Amino acid sequence: MVQRSALSVFFLLFFVLSCHSPKPEAATNERPPNVVVIFMDDMGYGDLSVMGHPTIHTPNIDRLAQEGQLWTSFYTASSVCSPSRGALLTGRYPIRIGLAGPRRRVFFPKSKGGLPQDEITIAEMLKAEGYKTGIIGKWHLGHLPEHLPMTQGFDYYYGIPYSNDMDGVKWGIETLLAEPADTSMWQVPLMENEQIIERPADQYTITKRYTEKAVDFMTTHREAPFFLYLPHSMVHTPLFAGPDFQGTNPRGRFGDVMREIDWSVGQVMETLDRLQLAENTLVVFTSDNGPWLSMLEHGGSAGLLRDGKGTTWEGGMRVPGIFRMPGTVAPGRITDMGSTLDLLPTVAALTGAKPPADRPLDGYDLSGVLRNQSASPRNEFFYYRKAELYAARQGPYKMHYVTETCYTPDNGKTEHPQPLLFQLEHDPSEKYDHADRHPEIVSRIENLVAAHKGTVEMVPPEMEKY
Amino acid sequence: MVQRSALSVFFLLFFVLSCHSPKPEAATNERPPNVVVIFMDDMGYGDLSVMGHPTIHTPNIDRLAQEGQLWTSFYTASSVCSPSRGALLTGRYPIRIGLAGPRRRVFFPKSKGGLPQDEITIAEMLKAEGYKTGIIGKWHLGHLPEHLPMTQGFDYYYGIPYSNDMDGVKWGIETLLAEPADTSMWQVPLMENEQIIERPADQYTITKRYTEKAVDFMTTHREAPFFLYLPHSMVHTPLFAGPDFQGTNPRGRFGDVMREIDWSVGQVMETLDRLQLAENTLVVFTSDNGPWLSMLEHGGSAGLLRDGKGTTWEGGMRVPGIFRMPGTVAPGRITDMGSTLDLLPTVAALTGAKPPADRPLDGYDLSGVLRNQSASPRNEFFYYRKAELYAARQGPYKMHYVTETCYTPDNGKTEHPQPLLFQLEHDPSEKYDHADRHPEIVSRIENLVAAHKGTVEMVPPEMEKY
Repeated sequence: MVQRSALSVFFLLFFVLSCHSPKPEAATNERPPNVVVIFMDDMGYGDLSVMGHPTIHTPNIDRLAQEGQLWTSFYTASSVCSPSRGALLTGRYPIRIGLAGPRRRVFFPKSKGGLPQDEITIAEMLKAEGYKTGIIGKWHLGHLPEHLPMTQGFDYYYGIPYSNDMDGVKWGIETLLAEPADTSMWQVPLMENEQIIERPADQYTITKRYTEKAVDFMTTHREAPFFLYLPHSMVHTPLFAGPDFQGTNPRGRFGDVMREIDWSVGQVMETLDRLQLAENTLVVFTSDNGPWLSMLEHGGSAGLLRDGKGTTWEGGMRVPGIFRMPGTVAPGRITDMGSTLDLLPTVAALTGAKPPADRPLDGYDLSGVLRNQSASPRNEFFYYRKAELYAARQGPYKMHYVTETCYTPDNGKTEHPQPLLFQLEHDPSEKYDHADRHPEIVSRIENLVAAHKGTVEMVPPEMEKY
Repeated sequence: MVQRSALSVFFLLFFVLSCHSPKPEAATNERPPNVVVIFMDDMGYGDLSVMGHPTIHTPNIDRLAQEGQLWTSFYTASSVCSPSRGALLTGRYPIRIGLAGPRRRVFFPKSKGGLPQDEITIAEMLKAEGYKTGIIGKWHLGHLPEHLPMTQGFDYYYGIPYSNDMDGVKWGIETLLAEPADTSMWQVPLMENEQIIERPADQYTITKRYTEKAVDFMTTHREAPFFLYLPHSMVHTPLFAGPDFQGTNPRGRFGDVMREIDWSVGQVMETLDRLQLAENTLVVFTSDNGPWLSMLEHGGSAGLLRDGKGTTWEGGMRVPGIFRMPGTVAPGRITDMGSTLDLLPTVAALTGAKPPADRPLDGYDLSGVLRNQSASPRNEFFYYRKAELYAARQGPYKMHYVTETCYTPDNGKTEHPQPLLFQLEHDPSEKYDHADRHPEIVSRIENLVAAHKGTVEMVPPEMEKY
């Protein structure tokens, strides 16, 4: 955001050093653990039965949470799709990696940009260690040949390369929520590696096919360490559940889709059991952003959190975070802060892989928490919308400079010359502003934000290449 | 509400018959099961970790839920204290039992009324079968000698007879939320049977002492079948946690109190284990109404549900409902409707006791669901505020005639000449009105309401005896 300065060099050094210390523990098994990251689309904090949803039933995901750690203050680095995905794969805020545009927030079918080639993804990091790497699902980081997953460390790709509501014959709430859902209204491609193999993709079978490909991938690479990134196209609107799952859940079509996703998670767990790999595989389950509330009953729920997708309220960016690896991850419920930004350094620590050392990383190594050996090293989080920092959290306190809401058509952007201050551990729903009472906290967070901004060099936004 | 008519006689018969059919199963054990009902005060749908709260940790209650059934569409019969308690004990809507006043909603220290003597409580029903019956906690159904628990079937009473914020030296938000909490600001009595044994009650130790008395009661009556009704004074504001629990939870004082309540539930479970009574004891855990949102951070959370205590939105009346009895209650998550009104007929079915046959009961026997033998017989629920029916639910649809909110000082009472209609299974947060689209459902619910009203004879309100 600012020009490189002495301060930013200091922070660069700080990040590089903090990233390498403590030194990653070498994996103690014969071979380093596999990593499976299941990434939901537009699933909110409240959309699992383990998170209290009254009618969505997710027994497999609940079991994953019970056998592992369920993080309840877990943040995605953006409240929309493309930047959230780029940040997960690189451990860096979208603004550092060309994914924070002044106008567009995600890639569209006409976009020419993508995740910059000099960014280093988890796939690249693990491939360097001999991992087999696959992505099955939604990429959404550039779909021209020079931006496809194979250019970013993946050996294999199968999936719809962007959102399932794109390439619309007619975009509008009527087609998005049409009953029955009409898969031909969305002329999205289904790709295998660099080839389009189906168009429009039959979305009724997409979750099933992703699951089968995921099972195949794990089975094929059972002898090698593997990294499987499984970003589902669902539960992004338009919603499609396979025939076996239609009408299976009282929540309606959203519930049917969640039921199928839950089945899919069960298939992953069952496959790991069958291959006797459960104890040597880190499974992560989380979501790209909060619920798309403007989709009415087809949108999810942020539970007790405020607002949803597209906003920097908690409902837009706090999502369920689940980590399971029996024998390594100590089961429990974690209220400390974590983020999808932390996956790269955490995976590095667990596998012995080397995170990039030549650039600021925004992620922390959470392996100490996973092993129940320490508190979370993450004590702050920055909430961006596009290239603008809207809010920052330090410890339990979150300060808003700017807010928006998805409840009005214009998003009701509001600047707060006197920032709002919420104590999130007491007040997760962000109702009670304490800025007046705690000027010292306001000023501490202002310092934190200034220091953070000193480390940020904005990269030209890829989403504007159109 | 209306004069007795042919229609109401029909419904009277219907209720009487439906209450006796199917015939209660005889208990198969040597002796009928014990019953423990743990009743929270002002705890909302979202205040347990098992319901997704990010910072409240309730491992014992979560375990109770996992070992038993967690009901997610479970209703208390009123959104405030006294009528909710009367309805739980009698299986009848407050309006039938003199607990729906035109002005006052609960009993105050100057109140001269109480639950009418001709009402039959669970305690009376079970006492007739030889049960030892005790209530430890908040009664709030009349505190003059002629209304105390011993007049309603209880052998033993220990507790604060009304709300812990009554008898205030100075009532106001400042004293309610004062830090540290000052127990002497509330000159509430602590009673044992008919005697006041302490005044003001030391509320810092109240949860601990209730728990010790509960453990004593179960231990003393281990050979007899017993009914223990344990309505906690917490988490009603003012909040008091014992010294062992202060500062133990990131949720602040509310979290500390929940932590102590959770410990208390753990003590009940441990005692049942120690006495080898777990498999012969039905444990029920629920709450009297939704969170008291006007208490700011000292109030609880309704999770994804709308609004809170004092309103007929879901947040006011839907609460967690947990039933555990290993070997009898099949563990699971139940989305069917249930209510505290159903406890009396359900307990009757499980114990072989006889529910009153001479009056309309509003409860259903849920034992078939508990045993995993059938769907819930409850397909409707009526939401009253005082003597006025504000809303009604049939199947997944809830229709509002009148709404209020706790978010404005005047409660913002709004009449809806065109009622609002929500599909709660799809839309638990009551956001999307479907009345226009479903006139046939509106008219079906209107018929249901008319039929219900035909059964209601309002009893003069006891809360007005002042």
